[in-house]
Amino acid sequence: MAMAMAMETTTTTTRRKIIVDTDPGVDDALTIFAALLCPEVEVIGLTTIFGNVPTAKATKNALGLLELAGRTDVPVASGSPCTFTGEEKLRIADFVHGDDGLGNTGELKPPPTATELGVSASQFIIDTAEKHPGEVIVLALGPLTNLAMALKEKPDLALHSIVCLGGAFRVNGNVNPSAEANIFCDPEAADFVFGGSVDMHVIPLDVTQRCVFSNMDLDLLEAKGGTLGKYMKDISQFYADFHKTTYNLNGLMLHDPTAFIAIVRPDLFFWKSGPIRVSCEGIAKGMTVMDMNKKVWRGPNQWSGRKHMKVALEVDEGAVVGAIRDTLLSQEPQKLYYSMK
Amino acid sequence: MAMAMAMETTTTTTRRKIIVDTDPGVDDALTIFAALLCPEVEVIGLTTIFGNVPTAKATKNALGLLELAGRTDVPVASGSPCTFTGEEKLRIADFVHGDDGLGNTGELKPPPTATELGVSASQFIIDTAEKHPGEVIVLALGPLTNLAMALKEKPDLALHSIVCLGGAFRVNGNVNPSAEANIFCDPEAADFVFGGSVDMHVIPLDVTQRCVFSNMDLDLLEAKGGTLGKYMKDISQFYADFHKTTYNLNGLMLHDPTAFIAIVRPDLFFWKSGPIRVSCEGIAKGMTVMDMNKKVWRGPNQWSGRKHMKVALEVDEGAVVGAIRDTLLSQEPQKLYYSMK
Repeated sequence: MAMAMAMETTTTTTRRKIIVDTDPGVDDALTIFAALLCPEVEVIGLTTIFGNVPTAKATKNALGLLELAGRTDVPVASGSPCTFTGEEKLRIADFVHGDDGLGNTGELKPPPTATELGVSASQFIIDTAEKHPGEVIVLALGPLTNLAMALKEKPDLALHSIVCLGGAFRVNGNVNPSAEANIFCDPEAADFVFGGSVDMHVIPLDVTQRCVFSNMDLDLLEAKGGTLGKYMKDISQFYADFHKTTYNLNGLMLHDPTAFIAIVRPDLFFWKSGPIRVSCEGIAKGMTVMDMNKKVWRGPNQWSGRKHMKVALEVDEGAVVGAIRDTLLSQEPQKLYYSMK
Repeated sequence: MAMAMAMETTTTTTRRKIIVDTDPGVDDALTIFAALLCPEVEVIGLTTIFGNVPTAKATKNALGLLELAGRTDVPVASGSPCTFTGEEKLRIADFVHGDDGLGNTGELKPPPTATELGVSASQFIIDTAEKHPGEVIVLALGPLTNLAMALKEKPDLALHSIVCLGGAFRVNGNVNPSAEANIFCDPEAADFVFGGSVDMHVIPLDVTQRCVFSNMDLDLLEAKGGTLGKYMKDISQFYADFHKTTYNLNGLMLHDPTAFIAIVRPDLFFWKSGPIRVSCEGIAKGMTVMDMNKKVWRGPNQWSGRKHMKVALEVDEGAVVGAIRDTLLSQEPQKLYYSMK
């Protein structure tokens, strides 16, 4: 009886509003398509940031991807061209995603029908949170610069939560042994957002590097995923080659899509919560350190008083990859299961 | 046949010469007694350092412990009173070990028969390595200051290896979420030694916090461990109270003795090797970061070119605790098993 009621509740849940903060990026593109195809969420906007590509190129790609998906109704707000502290020299991962960010398949042209807003990403996030207080999730797939700016402007920003792809807690980083790329690219922004007032779910390398598409998955996308599926296989080739060359891995890590799945299937992860700091200097620049065990320290330290954020430390990787596959293959929106409260 | 030969080899191995670099300290005292009782090693000297107590008190305690054990033939060399960079304001863990370092049981008086050498700890290490090139293990139970000074003076220091109690790799530290106490107390020294020419076996919190004596073990020491056993139970009470208050743990963590067991029973640990750096600033001060996976990075980083050191990441904790118990309870030297090549 209790179970029947729970299921009923699930089916009547309204679609969660999400903003995707993104630097497309191959796995960003997969994630944007998955979010658009998934009926449990409503993509109410894309905001862009540097990372895989510079911000201007990220905006152009975001607009182009929406055009390809036939969803030019979704607005795009362009984000910060520099870091939270104003640094203009950025680390761009073109060697992972190609010069154009989309596997060197040729930059997408901003389509005439696309909606680029006249407001900045941080302002769009603030405005949206004011319009739908407590309802909006920001899925942050790049450096946390836009969110840091929004939170600096509005410390009590009324988002539902931030789901953040970033960090490395019990494993090495991917920039160097200390740091994961998104956090490394703007550690001050990350430390500011982790210290902020908005609930966070952090999806670190610990779990994302275990969620991998094989070449068979790409073939399946091509065979059964329609036009978008063919495009996804196309742009994934450069990214797959990077994985082969760098990790000797036949496949590609689904960093961003895994973070998306955490929104609709949080039950596929094991979460620990605690205060998080980011190291901003020295050999540990960009390292994320969570106080894991809720033990009592002798006195206050630099973690004290911070909000406890949730970090995914274990994952049912087969189930996550399956959920991504099913969503991307669905011509019709594919119902997963919504349970992030 | 092969096994019989291997066993024969083991039985004919000469005793490994060790120097214990120590800041006694309750678990240091247990370790010194274990090393003196263990026939596979020959303690050829103690060197002292700050940490659980200031260096002068560490020297006094070292001399007193040797007197109690009837081993005033073992020489003691006093170590640095300040950090590798000359910092005189030190972090002393008197709240863990008591003001006297030995559970507030009353400072041991330097006995008239003890041998305090006129040379510094670092000089003693250099001299001993020259006398027995490639033969001596330094078991470092405190901050790595003395070893850093020795290696700065003599970069090709011909030790067999350093077995170091310190660091936290996949778990939080014990000073704060980033840092373990020995490394935190002198991070520059640790970074220098990890970057040096001598082979290291690092025994971090990941394994030492899992090796715990219960109150029954202490009772057993009192009942069957003779005079030294009674003394060990006495000095352990304050340290056990700290564990109860701080961790709600009925028992005491055997940090230093676990590092000693790694010398005679390396087979009880799972080792990974890689270059190690220590963060010296910010919220990650004292954090140890190893490049774990031997993967190829895009270019040189701050780990590049460093010697690969071994870190214990898993432990058969029951077997380690048993080996410590057996050694401390032996009236006669207790043969374990020597296999560190």
